[in-house]
Amino acid sequence: MDEALFNSCSMPEFIGAEVCDTIGLVIANIDPELRRRMDIPERFGAVGLIGSRTGAGAQIQACDEAVKSTPAEIVSIEIPRDTKGWGGHGNFIIMGSENVADVRRAVEIALDKIHEYAGEIYISEAGHMEFQYSARGGEAVNKAFGVGVGEPFGFVCASPAPIGFVIADTALKSAGTELVKVLRPSSGTSHSNEVIIVITGEASAVKTAVMTARESGMKLLRALGSEQHIGFPPRLRLEAATRTGL
Amino acid sequence: MDEALFNSCSMPEFIGAEVCDTIGLVIANIDPELRRRMDIPERFGAVGLIGSRTGAGAQIQACDEAVKSTPAEIVSIEIPRDTKGWGGHGNFIIMGSENVADVRRAVEIALDKIHEYAGEIYISEAGHMEFQYSARGGEAVNKAFGVGVGEPFGFVCASPAPIGFVIADTALKSAGTELVKVLRPSSGTSHSNEVIIVITGEASAVKTAVMTARESGMKLLRALGSEQHIGFPPRLRLEAATRTGL
Amino acid sequence: MDEALFNSCSMPEFIGAEVCDTIGLVIANIDPELRRRMDIPERFGAVGLIGSRTGAGAQIQACDEAVKSTPAEIVSIEIPRDTKGWGGHGNFIIMGSENVADVRRAVEIALDKIHEYAGEIYISEAGHMEFQYSARGGEAVNKAFGVGVGEPFGFVCASPAPIGFVIADTALKSAGTELVKVLRPSSGTSHSNEVIIVITGEASAVKTAVMTARESGMKLLRALGSEQHIGFPPRLRLEAATRTGL
Repeated sequence: MDEALFNSCSMPEFIGAEVCDTIGLVIANIDPELRRRMDIPERFGAVGLIGSRTGAGAQIQACDEAVKSTPAEIVSIEIPRDTKGWGGHGNFIIMGSENVADVRRAVEIALDKIHEYAGEIYISEAGHMEFQYSARGGEAVNKAFGVGVGEPFGFVCASPAPIGFVIADTALKSAGTELVKVLRPSSGTSHSNEVIIVITGEASAVKTAVMTARESGMKLLRALGSEQHIGFPPRLRLEAATRTGL
Repeated sequence: MDEALFNSCSMPEFIGAEVCDTIGLVIANIDPELRRRMDIPERFGAVGLIGSRTGAGAQIQACDEAVKSTPAEIVSIEIPRDTKGWGGHGNFIIMGSENVADVRRAVEIALDKIHEYAGEIYISEAGHMEFQYSARGGEAVNKAFGVGVGEPFGFVCASPAPIGFVIADTALKSAGTELVKVLRPSSGTSHSNEVIIVITGEASAVKTAVMTARESGMKLLRALGSEQHIGFPPRLRLEAATRTGL
Repeated sequence: MDEALFNSCSMPEFIGAEVCDTIGLVIANIDPELRRRMDIPERFGAVGLIGSRTGAGAQIQACDEAVKSTPAEIVSIEIPRDTKGWGGHGNFIIMGSENVADVRRAVEIALDKIHEYAGEIYISEAGHMEFQYSARGGEAVNKAFGVGVGEPFGFVCASPAPIGFVIADTALKSAGTELVKVLRPSSGTSHSNEVIIVITGEASAVKTAVMTARESGMKLLRALGSEQHIGFPPRLRLEAATRTGL
């Protein structure tokens, strides 16, 4: 592994690379036929791309912040079946803006924020979990999960699926939350081995629900025989230090 | 790896963990909104969950026995695209019963039986195979594969798909079997790299067909350059001892 | 690893095994019920199977040559979600012919050609890419991708998806190409983490476009922190020597 290779590239499209194999790119003048086939509206003179092999909520949250802080908008959010051999998703997010400076700034912000949100992705040898919370979900969260813009957003996800189901139940038994969406292997996911819920409600209740689910998930995933880790750089996933004291 | 972590958990929902990263859980009083969204009928006061990263037939057979021996019933069976980087499926099975004691017993029985049925999952570096046979398939087998309740059930599965196709042909050329279902990458599977057949017929004929297919599959999978293994604990998959003398 | 195991098998159906876990098989007299369920026309007395865990374009190109050189025809092409833990596809291709000698020859030719086409599959720790070009696509390319028989064919594929999108744009900005198809995680793929384009046009323009895309892709994939490799035998994927001087 040549460290000098990482996060450096002579291509003008390249903005940066981050944990979870997240890459950030821009295209100033997209080919017109490609634009048409990818359903990118004409008003977006430039597009920004965020995508990774691992994570979905984290990159969506990071892009949520990016479009809150810039004139860029979300064009599309896709969640392929990925996670590099684990049971979940990767992501592919297209943002657009009239000029390239705005969307470049949006991609930079998203890359900057991914470290923080990816800290709530936990991977063990047996499975994985992801948790997200925002007091006010924005355009990306709305587009991906149907939470009202400006509303609190909670995301609880675990694999294998039975763990996801039990911690979804734990979260929903917390007072003051409302279920927006359930995703399961046969519907809503890309055939991933997860149960995922998206919740809203009173902000502090949503946060408590997500944290309660996380605590239960830690115990259950650990019962499959290996410790989960967080905040992994792309090539050190399972060797990363365990976070303690949640 | 801390062995003490494995198969022990303070959560009341936790029943046990087994080979193939199989976990068994119960929920005594499921959240009403989650119940509605997951299509769990009201008559089931409690649900039991079995799911794993690897295997489908094995866990379905184990749950088949569980609902034969208890008042619990099968609510749903899902087969995510998983197998921890291999070309097949994991599974997520929900059982339900009026009271929690019954469904807990069902989960315990299923966990108890998984070792036996997972013994017919074979994984090599190149691909995998799974074989199942029952003289009298029950509710789970019926729900998952459309075999009549009480009828003989045979399951022949291999990845990569061409091997699955050839051993399906081998099985069906055995006298006295009847083809119930074919699953392939583009239909019936979650885009897995498998051909799977489900057969019925005269019990001894079905058993012979499955065993004949297994013998052919062993030879073909081995031709891809690595030995297959069985009965793997979740973290020792490829290091497990080879079973000989099939 | 016992080298003697590899590419040798006593089954009459076995023709050979190749890189990317590609296996080539024939069935002389397919079971009639299996034939019906797999939609294999009666006029094909024998079927030949090519499939692998990794690659799609490579095996399709190899089968394209096989059916150009023999009376065998393409019956079906499926692309499961696979690549052994990477973000892409495997493949499962059925060819048919009136007599077994013709389809056996087709499988032999395909196996023979896979080494060459698989040389344009690049895999790093972070992602992968595949490139294909033919001056005159045949029946397999037509069936899989909708390129007119006899027309130039270019194939540009990368994972994670944002890299695929940028190099698709690069390819299409080359003069003289025409976009036939775009595949992305939510449409056209089996939920893979890729953007793939299929192009046609003037032959030398298509070739230049694919090579330009490849050059960009190399730079972008490398920016995720690991070097890509090629021409990998099935068990040595990431240890293979790097090809230089593209």
